[in-house]
Amino acid sequence: MTRGAHRAENTPVEPDLVRTSEGMSCMSRTPPDYLTATQEALEAVRSTSPLVQCITNSVVVGFTANALLAVGAAPAMVDIPVEAGMFAGVASGVLINLGTCREEQRAAALEAAPAATAAGTPWVLDPVAIGALPVRTPLAHTLRDLGPSIVRGNASEILALAELGSGGRGVDSTSSVDEALTAAQLLARVSGGAVAISGATDVVTDGVSVVRLSNGHPVLTKVTGGGCALGAIMAAFAAVTPDSLTAAVAATSVYTVAADLAAERSALPGTFAVALLDALSEVSVDDIAARAVLA
Amino acid sequence: MTRGAHRAENTPVEPDLVRTSEGMSCMSRTPPDYLTATQEALEAVRSTSPLVQCITNSVVVGFTANALLAVGAAPAMVDIPVEAGMFAGVASGVLINLGTCREEQRAAALEAAPAATAAGTPWVLDPVAIGALPVRTPLAHTLRDLGPSIVRGNASEILALAELGSGGRGVDSTSSVDEALTAAQLLARVSGGAVAISGATDVVTDGVSVVRLSNGHPVLTKVTGGGCALGAIMAAFAAVTPDSLTAAVAATSVYTVAADLAAERSALPGTFAVALLDALSEVSVDDIAARAVLA
Amino acid sequence: MTRGAHRAENTPVEPDLVRTSEGMSCMSRTPPDYLTATQEALEAVRSTSPLVQCITNSVVVGFTANALLAVGAAPAMVDIPVEAGMFAGVASGVLINLGTCREEQRAAALEAAPAATAAGTPWVLDPVAIGALPVRTPLAHTLRDLGPSIVRGNASEILALAELGSGGRGVDSTSSVDEALTAAQLLARVSGGAVAISGATDVVTDGVSVVRLSNGHPVLTKVTGGGCALGAIMAAFAAVTPDSLTAAVAATSVYTVAADLAAERSALPGTFAVALLDALSEVSVDDIAARAVLA
Repeated sequence: MTRGAHRAENTPVEPDLVRTSEGMSCMSRTPPDYLTATQEALEAVRSTSPLVQCITNSVVVGFTANALLAVGAAPAMVDIPVEAGMFAGVASGVLINLGTCREEQRAAALEAAPAATAAGTPWVLDPVAIGALPVRTPLAHTLRDLGPSIVRGNASEILALAELGSGGRGVDSTSSVDEALTAAQLLARVSGGAVAISGATDVVTDGVSVVRLSNGHPVLTKVTGGGCALGAIMAAFAAVTPDSLTAAVAATSVYTVAADLAAERSALPGTFAVALLDALSEVSVDDIAARAVLA
Repeated sequence: MTRGAHRAENTPVEPDLVRTSEGMSCMSRTPPDYLTATQEALEAVRSTSPLVQCITNSVVVGFTANALLAVGAAPAMVDIPVEAGMFAGVASGVLINLGTCREEQRAAALEAAPAATAAGTPWVLDPVAIGALPVRTPLAHTLRDLGPSIVRGNASEILALAELGSGGRGVDSTSSVDEALTAAQLLARVSGGAVAISGATDVVTDGVSVVRLSNGHPVLTKVTGGGCALGAIMAAFAAVTPDSLTAAVAATSVYTVAADLAAERSALPGTFAVALLDALSEVSVDDIAARAVLA
Repeated sequence: MTRGAHRAENTPVEPDLVRTSEGMSCMSRTPPDYLTATQEALEAVRSTSPLVQCITNSVVVGFTANALLAVGAAPAMVDIPVEAGMFAGVASGVLINLGTCREEQRAAALEAAPAATAAGTPWVLDPVAIGALPVRTPLAHTLRDLGPSIVRGNASEILALAELGSGGRGVDSTSSVDEALTAAQLLARVSGGAVAISGATDVVTDGVSVVRLSNGHPVLTKVTGGGCALGAIMAAFAAVTPDSLTAAVAATSVYTVAADLAAERSALPGTFAVALLDALSEVSVDDIAARAVLA
């Protein structure tokens, strides 16, 4: 794993890299040119308006729906038992975020994840604040084993999801992105999907390739839902992108380039949050070309 | 019904139309001049600040409270069992929105609806995303039979509430407003109240009269709660307006004229949502006179 | 009590007042110079970023988290049973707000309050809309008896918490701040903490001293969460301020001075709410010195 990851890390946008991974069935595929793939995914989200089911926390649920609408997707916060599993079979993508996972949401999550997998619907797991908290942590581990297409979290959450760390300080990470990279690669190998670690530089991996994205602005950490909404947008991009790694990279790039644009308008948190929604609706494929910093 | 509806449809603002409906006790009343009635209702909301109880979804609950405050009403999100029924007896109006109807909210709704009816409190039903979803759909049918003063939904939801359609795509309608008009008229006849169908042109009917309102802006569909907040505002207007049809028309007119004003400030979703709250607090009777498009 | 309160009321910022209270163990302490203490507390919040656990209502939870982030604190909305009590032991401060207290939140509150007390963590009780409502009212009385560091409410809520009134009109007070002052002093004596009554002039008391704060703007009452967010900010300030009275005064002063700054930008509710978050992140110790009106 180390060797493969290292190799990919140095050539993340190399278009003809043949990746081989012991943890996956032996396969050969050509990683996309991430910039072009991001532009195509953005256009596909806007033209097809994927229906994204969100089982997410009460703090960010409104902002998340607005972010999905702004970028061109269609939110549907179907998060009650019986309906959640059924809906996951018809949704284009699913987000499961454990931020305030009350009992009905926990049941809904345990319905939706396998239903999504059974229907071939991509789903994203955001294990908010796991580590020491005794309800969400085992739930996150259970969901992890159901094979999320994408896992998104900060370094402490990724370490805790891999059972290699005890979590952060509430929703804040106490570990660095680099400390969590090996855990992220391990998780991705096991799930067969992608894992994204948020930080000043965001890192996305499928266990082999490692892509680093350096857009965004510190004020994003001063807006609640700044990270959670990205999880929903990843589900939207996964709905139009066959490859989970590419979907996570594309969503991160679009979201953080939009954050750059918004921060130019204002780096104060209230105005920035409003400008971010505007920017998500305006960000163009040319903006992505001009601003995206991937390595 | 068809004849009566047709007649009314062609003369929606005719002031001396005598309506007769087989489904209601035979009665004669003079439909108001909607423009004047809307202006009076807006002033009455601002001067009396009706207390509007909302049992609504977690996505839009904050925006809904802010919209009520902006227009001059007083929100009270009392949505837990035991309290909900009691409060419905003292509130000025009640909204029941099924968007994320967890178990306690379902019990609260089933308390509040009959309590409101018993107290003579007008109440609004917003059957969000009903059709195929197996929890909210039968609940909406039960509530429908309790006689809501106003039903508000998109075309797919109105068809599903009348058991004439299988619902839309999540919260999005897959049917046109005109396709749902007969269903709306049927529902209104049975409930004795009004039914409002949201769309590019909004249509409100009491089963006989049909009023079409053509204000608003497409960006309203890019803001979560754009429709749900209108349901709450309908409850506020119903609290100060004896006639449900007039209340629904007045609330729709005020809300969509405010949306017009806001869209002139910005048609980007983040800025627009903020401007909409500003506009709801500023919209004047003169704005209504100058801009309202009713037919 | 009356005499002591009266004396303190006339000399609230007298730096060397020796207070004696029959209801507390006899003690002597020097009340701080509130202006300096407020400035120091603001700097301490920003430099230490206290972790504030919120068990709060669904209407304001997002705005509350954003307000905490803006002022420099770290929100953590851990509000489910089992986790809530555990987290209260590690949080820097806790807010319990009863606005939409569903069953799990009620259990969470009853875990968190004693856990916070046991850990020496300051906690704030906001008894939203208590009085006649039969679920939240007895819960608020139970929590009151667990010794909140700070109670925050409008006059009707404070009277109802002291069992001296029957509550207001939903979330609106029907009593004046002065009518509630004796009740506030009684509550503070019993709890050993501070009680803040919100109004055009905010009043904070520890049962002896009475501080009146006259910043803020009427538009604050047109934004949902305008008061609820202050409860969370009080918990943040209590985390960095040993004295509950000083913490409540400092939080109120910072928050209402920020509201003054925001209202200069716009007194329309949508724009104001955004500007308030900006102002909370920008408000400086010099702004406090120049604008705070305490007596």
